[in-house]
Formats: sequence, structure tokens, C-alpha cells
Amino acid sequence: MADWPKSVHIHEEGPREGFQFEKGAIPTAAKVELIDALSETGLKEIQTVSFVNPKRVPGMADADEVVRRFRKAPGVRYSGLWLNEKGLERALASEKIDVEGRIVLCASEPFLARNQNITLDQMADMQRAMIATYQARGIPVVEGAVQAAFGCNFKGEVTTGDVLAIVARIVSIAQESGIALKRLVLADTMAWAVPARIRAVVGAVRERYPDLAVTLHLHDTRGMGIANAYAGLEMGVHAFDSSVAGLGGCPFAAHKGAAGNVCTEDLVFMCEEMGISTGVDLDRLIDAANLAERIVGHPLPGAVKQGGSLNRYRQAGQ
Amino acid sequence: MADWPKSVHIHEEGPREGFQFEKGAIPTAAKVELIDALSETGLKEIQTVSFVNPKRVPGMADADEVVRRFRKAPGVRYSGLWLNEKGLERALASEKIDVEGRIVLCASEPFLARNQNITLDQMADMQRAMIATYQARGIPVVEGAVQAAFGCNFKGEVTTGDVLAIVARIVSIAQESGIALKRLVLADTMAWAVPARIRAVVGAVRERYPDLAVTLHLHDTRGMGIANAYAGLEMGVHAFDSSVAGLGGCPFAAHKGAAGNVCTEDLVFMCEEMGISTGVDLDRLIDAANLAERIVGHPLPGAVKQGGSLNRYRQAGQ
Repeated sequence: MADWPKSVHIHEEGPREGFQFEKGAIPTAAKVELIDALSETGLKEIQTVSFVNPKRVPGMADADEVVRRFRKAPGVRYSGLWLNEKGLERALASEKIDVEGRIVLCASEPFLARNQNITLDQMADMQRAMIATYQARGIPVVEGAVQAAFGCNFKGEVTTGDVLAIVARIVSIAQESGIALKRLVLADTMAWAVPARIRAVVGAVRERYPDLAVTLHLHDTRGMGIANAYAGLEMGVHAFDSSVAGLGGCPFAAHKGAAGNVCTEDLVFMCEEMGISTGVDLDRLIDAANLAERIVGHPLPGAVKQGGSLNRYRQAGQ
Repeated sequence: MADWPKSVHIHEEGPREGFQFEKGAIPTAAKVELIDALSETGLKEIQTVSFVNPKRVPGMADADEVVRRFRKAPGVRYSGLWLNEKGLERALASEKIDVEGRIVLCASEPFLARNQNITLDQMADMQRAMIATYQARGIPVVEGAVQAAFGCNFKGEVTTGDVLAIVARIVSIAQESGIALKRLVLADTMAWAVPARIRAVVGAVRERYPDLAVTLHLHDTRGMGIANAYAGLEMGVHAFDSSVAGLGGCPFAAHKGAAGNVCTEDLVFMCEEMGISTGVDLDRLIDAANLAERIVGHPLPGAVKQGGSLNRYRQAGQ
């Protein structure tokens, strides 16, 4: 039988992933309203904004204002995203964002060439430079992340060996600076994974790096998100990135169905129905998902917000 | 490790499930066009129509005409649905429908009371009457089916014990008439299942009835369809009902998100990417899914028709 965890940690990324890529401006007040609603659901970690160049990502131009205005709830960690030192400065200045460093590499050089016009060596050097900045400021670095860990629209297959080589490189970069990483994010950036690949890659990483807790970052572009999360649970994964209502998407993936992350409330439904604790009140989360849908003004992919939780049917049946 | 099958059998139900419940009339020619397109994908079994009372299901009033007009492709089995002897007569008269009997019971008495105003005993007697008709005409009866096998909006929980009791009753009804069933459909009629329930129920049924091949009929109302199919594969299930593009839905389930069956092309994508043969040409099937969407004139839930297969990316990467 599978070694399912007793509980899982969910890193909610909807406000950042979702609003970053919506066409049309989302009012700052609406972004704040969603973050505040999510804070009341029992979620323990919410990624709020990207501190990126407003010229490149206009949807995040109000990031500092969003952070200023949302209400911090007790017991919730608020994260943000940044790509360089300037973004890090903004995150630090906010005083509400829980700032941690991470070391990110990509398992596909063609993806890097196409989207960031850099080589893997250059990306590694950028990580080293950021580590120096983190360490100079006393910011902890505990997480590594592998982009395109299950396949790439530009490279094609990404093998388990490719992933292990990238993880080795991340671990080595960490060790150069005396850092022992605790967590590793495996990201299915372009939605290539199926459950068998999740099992193979997570299994190989777990075997080689038993002290690294794996987080899965799953995109749902081909409808495999929940099945892949389940395969992750079977392999003992107990941390997932996800987006309320399925908000978000990858703008660089070069296919029309750039669906977002696996949907938070669908993931919570599956876990709770299998006896795996998420700490989340599903009905409140469904309310937040419906709010997200009203904010963006178009249907979002999550299913449970339509189908509903089973609570009222259970009560009716008793 | 799971004992995945090497190949799976897919019973495509889109034309029947989907068009039966669409609001607004679908032209007969469009129904025929979709069936003909599906016949060219490599699918081995396609459920085409319901031979039901046109007054109760106006969307199926043209069932006989649809069957008259679709092109039979070699190697494809065409099935239909009927609820009584009159419907059976129409299926037989068509001469294109592969007529087989089945014994259907429901694991929830409240569901029967609510939707058909009958008791389980009455349903059992109706099955016996149909068996007599089948046997009088030399029609084989090889399949049993359990409705609401994973939970019910009116009864609440359906336990593994409930399901085993219903299967025992189906097997007993078969034996009364000297029938040894070969297959058993477990239907998640109201989308209550999660992978752990699939494992528990399929496991218990397999253990008690090792000679009955289980087919899963999965609804995707809460986004669990593909994950549940994967859990089925892990339990050795090698037959699935599904609907192209996710066409269809249950009109009786009393919730707004009455989504259809698990989506055929998403299921095919998962299987083929895991090395499990479906016999289906995924790109052709995606074309058929896009046709289905054009026919109904609104978005359908399948993901892979948006995200695309991985074939062109693999070629690009070589």
C-alpha cells in the first residue's frame, strides 16, 4: 500500500500566478480581497505577489500596494516572488513578506534560451550571486527548485537522469556556500507529467536525496494535475503548490491551453476525502474560489467549486 | 509497485451521454458526424444513442435515424442504451447495434426512490423480467452494473459493504437464470469517489469476485475523474467508460456542476504516456473532441484538446 502522508502543506499561489497573467487590469482592492478571503480558509502559506518589473508584468505593478493593504492573519505565512536583487529589496521593504532564498535551475536549456536568453551556466551564476546577497543579509536559503522537471515543449523529453543531474548541481551550489537545503520543488512547468513519471522522478530523487522534502508544483494544462498530485501522495510527497480555482497559467509555454496550477480546492477535496489533513475549511475555500472567478470575470477551471463539497449531502443522508 | 494493465479498453459514451442532456436540439447530421469521426480514431466501442421515450428525452428522439445514418467501421463495436423492452426492440431493429444484456442495480435506495420512484426489490424484479426477455431472444447477458457505487447525494456514504451486497445480489440474479457474468461496471454516478475509495471498493470486489473484470464509469464533477482512473489502473482495472471532450452529465444529481464522464482524450493521454496501449490515435481523437465542442457550441471540460498532445513537441526536440 502507498505511504500516504497524514497531512499535507499547501502553498497557495493563486493571487500571484493568477493575477499576474490575467488580461485586463484587476483592481488592487480585488486582489487584496482575495488574499484576505484565503487567509480565513485555514491555508498556512499564501503567495501574494511578484515583485517584478512593472513594465514587463503590468498586472503586478501594484504589488507593493497589495502587500501594504492585505491583512496578515495569525499562523499564515505570506510569500512573494522576485527574480533579482531589486525585487528582493521590495519584498524586504514590505515587512509583511516572509523572505526566504531559493536556488532555481531549469532542466531544459532550450527553455532557458527561448524564454530568458541565458544558458544553464549563466543561470547557475545568477543563483550564486543571489545566494551571496541572501547570506549578506542573513536571509535563510532552504529550498531548491527544478523547472521543467518532467518535460519541455522546446527540449522534448526530460529524463529522470536529467533531473538528478540538475538536483546535484543545485545541491552543489548550495554546498559551495555552506547551505544544506531542506526542500526541493519539482515543477511540471509545461504540464508533461503523468502519474508514472511523477513516481519515477520523485522516487529517484527521494532515493538519492532522502533528506530533501519534495514539493510538487503541478500545472493542469493536460488535466493530469490531480492524478499527478495523487501519485505524489503515494510517493510520500506532503507539500504542493496550487492555485485557488485553478487561477493562473504560464505565458511562455507556446500552447493555447496554458492552464494554471492544479486547483487548490480540488486538491483539498481529494486529500480530505482520503483522510489526509490539509487544515483547510473546504466550504470556505470554495467561497474564495467563487470570489476569484467573480474577480477575473470568466470561468476558472476548478471543478469542486461547481460540484460542491459533500458535506451537505452527508448531512442530508444522516 | 502497481499492476498496471498493458492495454485498456475504452467504451466511448460521448455521443449518448453528451447529446442526451444538451439543452437545445443537436442536428441529427452533427450526431452522425461525431460518431463517424470517433469511428476513425481507433476506439473499439462507441455508445451511440439511447432508445428511450422521446417525450422524456427529446434530445434522443432521432435515435433510430442516427443509427441508420452512421457508418459502421470495421473492428468497432457500436452499443446503445435502453431501459425497457420497447427500447430493446428498437435496438434490435436497428441491426447496427451490438445488443447485449446487462443486470443493473443501484447501491442507494434513496436515489432510486427519488429518480425512478421504485424500490431496490422492484428494480431487481425489473432486471429479472429483462433477463427473461434477453434469454427468450438468445441475447447474451454478460455484464452487471452498480449505480452510485461510491456515494450518493441522497443516501450519503455508500460503504464497501453496501457495494459488495449489491454485487452479490446481481450475481445471484444472474445465477437464478444460469448466467455467469464476465464483467462488472462500478459507476460513480454522483462523483463521490476519490482514489482511496476506488482502491478500497475495486480491491474488495476483485478479492471476492476474481473472475469479474471491473469497468469503471467515472464522473468528473469534482475533478477526480483522471485520478480515479489512475487508481483503477493501479488496481488492475483495464476497462473504462468515458466521453470525448467530457461531453455529458447526469441531470438527476441535484447539483449545479453535473459534469460528464471522465474525458476520453485526457484518459488516452494518461494511458499512452504511461505506456498503456489504448489503440487510439490521440491527435485524431483531439480533432473529434474539437468537433464535439463545435457541435454543442459551448466549451467542454476536456483539457488535452486545449493543451494538445506532446507529439509535436517531441518532434521539435529531436
